[in-house]
Amino acid sequence: MSTYTSVIIRIEMDSRRAAFADVSAAISRSGGDMIAIDLIRSHQTMTVRDVTVNMMDSKCDEVLDSIRSIEGITIVNVSDCTFLAHLGGKIEIQAKRPIRNREDLSRVYTPGVAKISRTIHEQQHKAYSLTLKRNSVAVVSDGTAVLGLGDIGPWAALPVMEGKAMLFKQLANIDAYPLCLDTKDPDEIVRIVKAVSPGFGGINLEDISSPRCFEIERRLTEELDIPVFHDDQHGTAVVAIAGLINALKVVGKRMDDVRIVVAGIGAAGVSICKMLIAAGAGEVIAVDREGALSSQHEYDNPMWSWLASRTNPSQLQGSVSDVMNGVDVFIGVSGPGALSVEDVRKMADNAIVFAMANPEPEIDPEVAEPYVKVLATGRSDYPNQINNVLCFPGMFRGALDCRAKLINEEMKLAAASAIAGVIPEEEVNEHYIIPSIFNEVVVERVRQAVVEAAIQTGVHNRIPRDLQDGMRTAELAVSGAFEGKGV
Amino acid sequence: MSTYTSVIIRIEMDSRRAAFADVSAAISRSGGDMIAIDLIRSHQTMTVRDVTVNMMDSKCDEVLDSIRSIEGITIVNVSDCTFLAHLGGKIEIQAKRPIRNREDLSRVYTPGVAKISRTIHEQQHKAYSLTLKRNSVAVVSDGTAVLGLGDIGPWAALPVMEGKAMLFKQLANIDAYPLCLDTKDPDEIVRIVKAVSPGFGGINLEDISSPRCFEIERRLTEELDIPVFHDDQHGTAVVAIAGLINALKVVGKRMDDVRIVVAGIGAAGVSICKMLIAAGAGEVIAVDREGALSSQHEYDNPMWSWLASRTNPSQLQGSVSDVMNGVDVFIGVSGPGALSVEDVRKMADNAIVFAMANPEPEIDPEVAEPYVKVLATGRSDYPNQINNVLCFPGMFRGALDCRAKLINEEMKLAAASAIAGVIPEEEVNEHYIIPSIFNEVVVERVRQAVVEAAIQTGVHNRIPRDLQDGMRTAELAVSGAFEGKGV
Repeated sequence: MSTYTSVIIRIEMDSRRAAFADVSAAISRSGGDMIAIDLIRSHQTMTVRDVTVNMMDSKCDEVLDSIRSIEGITIVNVSDCTFLAHLGGKIEIQAKRPIRNREDLSRVYTPGVAKISRTIHEQQHKAYSLTLKRNSVAVVSDGTAVLGLGDIGPWAALPVMEGKAMLFKQLANIDAYPLCLDTKDPDEIVRIVKAVSPGFGGINLEDISSPRCFEIERRLTEELDIPVFHDDQHGTAVVAIAGLINALKVVGKRMDDVRIVVAGIGAAGVSICKMLIAAGAGEVIAVDREGALSSQHEYDNPMWSWLASRTNPSQLQGSVSDVMNGVDVFIGVSGPGALSVEDVRKMADNAIVFAMANPEPEIDPEVAEPYVKVLATGRSDYPNQINNVLCFPGMFRGALDCRAKLINEEMKLAAASAIAGVIPEEEVNEHYIIPSIFNEVVVERVRQAVVEAAIQTGVHNRIPRDLQDGMRTAELAVSGAFEGKGV
Repeated sequence: MSTYTSVIIRIEMDSRRAAFADVSAAISRSGGDMIAIDLIRSHQTMTVRDVTVNMMDSKCDEVLDSIRSIEGITIVNVSDCTFLAHLGGKIEIQAKRPIRNREDLSRVYTPGVAKISRTIHEQQHKAYSLTLKRNSVAVVSDGTAVLGLGDIGPWAALPVMEGKAMLFKQLANIDAYPLCLDTKDPDEIVRIVKAVSPGFGGINLEDISSPRCFEIERRLTEELDIPVFHDDQHGTAVVAIAGLINALKVVGKRMDDVRIVVAGIGAAGVSICKMLIAAGAGEVIAVDREGALSSQHEYDNPMWSWLASRTNPSQLQGSVSDVMNGVDVFIGVSGPGALSVEDVRKMADNAIVFAMANPEPEIDPEVAEPYVKVLATGRSDYPNQINNVLCFPGMFRGALDCRAKLINEEMKLAAASAIAGVIPEEEVNEHYIIPSIFNEVVVERVRQAVVEAAIQTGVHNRIPRDLQDGMRTAELAVSGAFEGKGV
């Protein structure tokens, strides 16, 4: 799939031999869209301009060649805007207050800081009020399953984790720091995350390949007293369930009454199946390359064995095609081509298809559309984008604010309901089952739902001030800077 | 030792029964210095004020009691300014650019970021230009030797490491992140630091107890291709050597001609001895609790054996007192009481004494002063403070800017010379051998000296643009944001 890109081309022009109109014409003829021109310098016969051009990635060479072919024009430099946006990294550390003088220094560093260290040494929980711990999340990856790129290693995973940290900050005011680990050993990863945990209030696992991710998350959840959340599993699952809640409203079916095929039983697929079971879905059939999971088979992957024992009550066998008859909902987190038009036509009336493989969906949306009532993908260029950016900021904001010991199914389901509930019932329709990632109420709604579910299930360590006594002054808790002032 | 503190006292006053003048009088009578008053609310007969009072820590209870004893006055709350400065932590993460719209998002996160990840996967060194790596330092501690507090654990070490991160940012624009490790096992610490290293351009080890710190630093230096620097060892040593260089100017002696006793052969003491040897000091005698290190003894600590074989050529035996006859320089990184007046009086004429134990020096500076020519301590309330804040920001700025593989003795000595050189020859005197930590040229001077030494010893991977061809436009390299623009 070709993506849209923005490129800055520095052009040197000999004005005796060429006119800038030739350049504009060449760019638009070859498929580029010129959106900005900056004059860098101009001499009598020579001018240098930076020209910003939007185009499909695939058109880039063509555009550049068309410019180069003009006599009197030289391309000095080409800067891809995506690369420019990454130069020097995307995040930085800031002090919350400047050190202006010796008195400030003696407060935040020696000798004054000794008093703070002594206090935490005596009462460890004070680290929550007196250090960065309360608002910090480690974004941990080993680089084994990065985006659609696979095992590209911890260095190449860095820009993804930095991007995630940007989103954490902008959407939920959480200080997330990327830790990309140069090891693939699950034992080692568990040991490392446990060792670095004193300085963090939560752990976001990211882009760790399946099935290793299950064991790593399970052990960390058991052994740490801070929330651990593998976003590839649960972020995707929470948003998919949110979409499904609204999609079912559109078609007038009930969760406990539908038959659902989940295709691709990796990190996200497993979590989707588990959440569907917890949400009381009628019938769930989990299908991977080896066919429908069934308790009649044995699996090396313990997560598959567990799922096989709790899904597919009719013991259906075979591929996706073999199990699609009369299915109400298809949820794909597999790969392109996993679902054919024939498969879709076998589905029940008012079919719901979530084709979330990225960047290429299980079925071309335009091909599927005539046969389904509600269609969702992972892409931003079709309606109903299932994007985990809707989940993780509010999920962690809530978990941090109530100092949850862990994140349980109840909290995930509460988050899914909250995301679905952002769209008023009367506005829900087949093209609008999921709010936009830029919808400003999502994070706060998810946060409140997560905190309430944590309190109801007793995994919280405190109740945020704004959620005490029915008071809901969200700002206080989001900043939280003056709680516990009388230390 | 009692430190100075600043406290905010919230006072509720019944104006029928008391006058605020009574409060002011009580505060000053009991040793407090009232520096600010904020009226919080006022009713007909009741007013609430926040009163900021400076005082010695030890006076705090007295001041509060004197206020409480006034009829009609209630203390509502007491907030220590040092605690207030720590509430919610001292550092945060910031995105370098906001995500304003979907186009921004698709550049810094999926799908655009995939292009960056692929580039780094193909050329790993591109992580330096396209991620936070270039400017990031991990401040790693296991909390085993924090300030003068000892083994208080990783949670209690957090505020110190956060303070350090603030200084890194403010003084050298370096993004430092605290990693406080919940393990004391040197093998484990080495494994963890290696595993997290992809995202960092340098490692600052901090407050790790001796002798474990030597092995951890040595192994990390050998096994990583980024600089590793244990600040407690080398930061202190570099600044002490800087002070010594200027102190020798004051007394008119030569480095290769003096006899130096170093007392306290822990982390800092070892590094000081090694740097003195590298600097060609005349004679070094290393003394710990077990006496002067000598090659006639055997030691469990391999670092002591190494030092014993390279110091104390006359094989002196015994305690500090036993070896002080005719000594030119005493450098103490031990504890209070390690040096007596009698010891000082045994020294050669124009004695130099660095009594750097913190918070209480080896000898009371006022007691020692009549008998020494140059006196330095680790404290800010006497002249000549040996403070490692003078070293680490410029040291890492230089090491990051030239992508040094490691930090060697040459780079440390260059840093020491640079710090000493900040004070013009004609201004050096017995009360001014070390620049202030607020001196603005220190970081840049240290940086340049470190880069030059790295280049001379071949441990650099690049030459910062401003130090190429004799050009020195420091700003360019410090921001460095547009190097390698034509990616």
